[in-house]
Amino acid sequence: MPDNLFELRRRQVSEGLVEHSLDALLVSFGANLRYLSGFTGSNGALLVLPGRTLLFTDPRYTIQAAQESCCEVRIAKGPLLAEVVEAARRLRVRRIGYEPARLTCEAYRALESSLPPRGSLEPVTGWVELLRAVKSPEEIELIRRSVLTNSRAFDAVVKKVRPGMRESELAADLEYRMRRLGAEKPAFETIVAGGERSALPHASPTPARLENGQLVVIDMGALEDGYCSDMTRMLFLGTPGQKVKRLYRAVLDAQLAALDAVRAGTTAAAVDRAARRVLDRHGFGPAFIHSTGHGLGLEIHEPPRVGKRDRTRLQPGMVITIEPGAYLAGFGGVRIEDTVVVTRHGCEILTPTAKELRVI
Amino acid sequence: MPDNLFELRRRQVSEGLVEHSLDALLVSFGANLRYLSGFTGSNGALLVLPGRTLLFTDPRYTIQAAQESCCEVRIAKGPLLAEVVEAARRLRVRRIGYEPARLTCEAYRALESSLPPRGSLEPVTGWVELLRAVKSPEEIELIRRSVLTNSRAFDAVVKKVRPGMRESELAADLEYRMRRLGAEKPAFETIVAGGERSALPHASPTPARLENGQLVVIDMGALEDGYCSDMTRMLFLGTPGQKVKRLYRAVLDAQLAALDAVRAGTTAAAVDRAARRVLDRHGFGPAFIHSTGHGLGLEIHEPPRVGKRDRTRLQPGMVITIEPGAYLAGFGGVRIEDTVVVTRHGCEILTPTAKELRVI
Repeated sequence: MPDNLFELRRRQVSEGLVEHSLDALLVSFGANLRYLSGFTGSNGALLVLPGRTLLFTDPRYTIQAAQESCCEVRIAKGPLLAEVVEAARRLRVRRIGYEPARLTCEAYRALESSLPPRGSLEPVTGWVELLRAVKSPEEIELIRRSVLTNSRAFDAVVKKVRPGMRESELAADLEYRMRRLGAEKPAFETIVAGGERSALPHASPTPARLENGQLVVIDMGALEDGYCSDMTRMLFLGTPGQKVKRLYRAVLDAQLAALDAVRAGTTAAAVDRAARRVLDRHGFGPAFIHSTGHGLGLEIHEPPRVGKRDRTRLQPGMVITIEPGAYLAGFGGVRIEDTVVVTRHGCEILTPTAKELRVI
Repeated sequence: MPDNLFELRRRQVSEGLVEHSLDALLVSFGANLRYLSGFTGSNGALLVLPGRTLLFTDPRYTIQAAQESCCEVRIAKGPLLAEVVEAARRLRVRRIGYEPARLTCEAYRALESSLPPRGSLEPVTGWVELLRAVKSPEEIELIRRSVLTNSRAFDAVVKKVRPGMRESELAADLEYRMRRLGAEKPAFETIVAGGERSALPHASPTPARLENGQLVVIDMGALEDGYCSDMTRMLFLGTPGQKVKRLYRAVLDAQLAALDAVRAGTTAAAVDRAARRVLDRHGFGPAFIHSTGHGLGLEIHEPPRVGKRDRTRLQPGMVITIEPGAYLAGFGGVRIEDTVVVTRHGCEILTPTAKELRVI
């Protein structure tokens, strides 16, 4: 990522300070910190001032902070937030914005208790997240790579799936392959669930063996160069019956309808509605128990939420998942998921993997 | 884990409520929630009352919550904390303890704004963590298994290390082997760093190839059935020179001295001092830039901290790491780490892996 991209982002924050009536913004949440500075260490805090940004970290990261970021680095001997307040005092910063959804009560109190006399802490919710929602071309390329790694791993491993293989074994193979193809790690715990367990939207892989006659859900993502991908595909071991085919067809129709609805200017809720309407028509409305998708980037779940109540207007460059599903307790479930970029007149589907039910 | 173990733990909290002048304790942090209830879902809150515990989660976890916990389960349609407050109101709970280090400012405000007229939120720091620090025999067996998985994976993979192998490849192989041996995932990002990079205590694996003449640090742990292990071992590719041998000997001496100092009744700081003294004597005092160790269990870092300033008296059943290191910038670093259980008169070293410098 070029240095001037980080500078551009910090300038956006810096220029927004006046509008928020702030002298500075304190950022300590990992993804936001990385977004604004490039720093990837586990312990850091960023103080964005007009035209200037200080990065605080501890001695373990002295070298790394200098390599990764082009901010002014301050190595703290004690707790970071105490150093932040001390720097704020020296720089006569009074109104400091903080991220209430990202700061613990304990950290807040530590900050508050050491503020200078006329200093104050002002909650600022979702500002950096809002900037992060629209991806730059460089970010889209990183997500594209993460998506490709994910799909390549899926293709390579899924060929070897046979009845008798354990869910946990398949999950381990998928994750290993992603790593060997360049991922740092899985973007989230890989889901592999066969038979009735495919009806659990968040099933952890178990040592259970996959059997003939089972629907198998695979939901996986790579984290590569910090960026996430997310894909769900379905396998069937043996010959699928009518009910499986009908369920699959309904979810696929819903997914295609939602993809069709994606374009700049439409709301996230409208995309969700498009999927829901199709599943309703197929009689699977009540079996669709989650949202149609979510934004992703440095985090696996980011704004917008592609759900009933999210009125966010989609913008070109937003990257979201489209993943309707239908879950029948005691039978099984189907979910189909792609990662897509919103464009002016529609979307680009990044996920290259075929979407048919894979019969094994 | 037997149900009555969770009941016992909840009873300990329940009985401590009076002492803390509380009507109930609210627990929402994952590891604490799991410790008291057995529930492993990603979204939950626990309200511990005298003689009674309510577990709140969302509809995705209806089945799982019933299977994993023996608490009274409440499935929330909206935000969990709103349901918690509503239940507290109905149960006439007034003084609710919360965990300030685990709750965000945003969540705190949501709670506070919906409290009944005479309700209050009282900060309670580290109570459940204190209970967690001393492990039950069942927990020690789980940690022992996690340690064994970790060591077996290390032994199997390290045999295949050759110059030319990439750090990231070796890390991927270690993690894959842990999974195949029963781990859910690595307990933390596996560290593999060769040459000068071995002097970075928290190095991420890179695509760099291991070369002859390099020290290589491997710091890895398994997460199995929820419990962590943690081990560091060193390799040398080729024939180690005098400086490497001296450095290794010094760190090994320090590690043995710290292990020797562990026993019930001594302080964590005294154990740290034992390691530090030896490295000082060898002239590597300033190169030892972190603490000697840390507790581990459901989290990879838990109290106590085996560091200069932690006056915690060790108790039988505490599980800690002993991991002194010495880091020479531009040359390389050495760290040696075992996972141990504190016993009445010393400690049991759980890690079975040989501690010599492995020359390859």
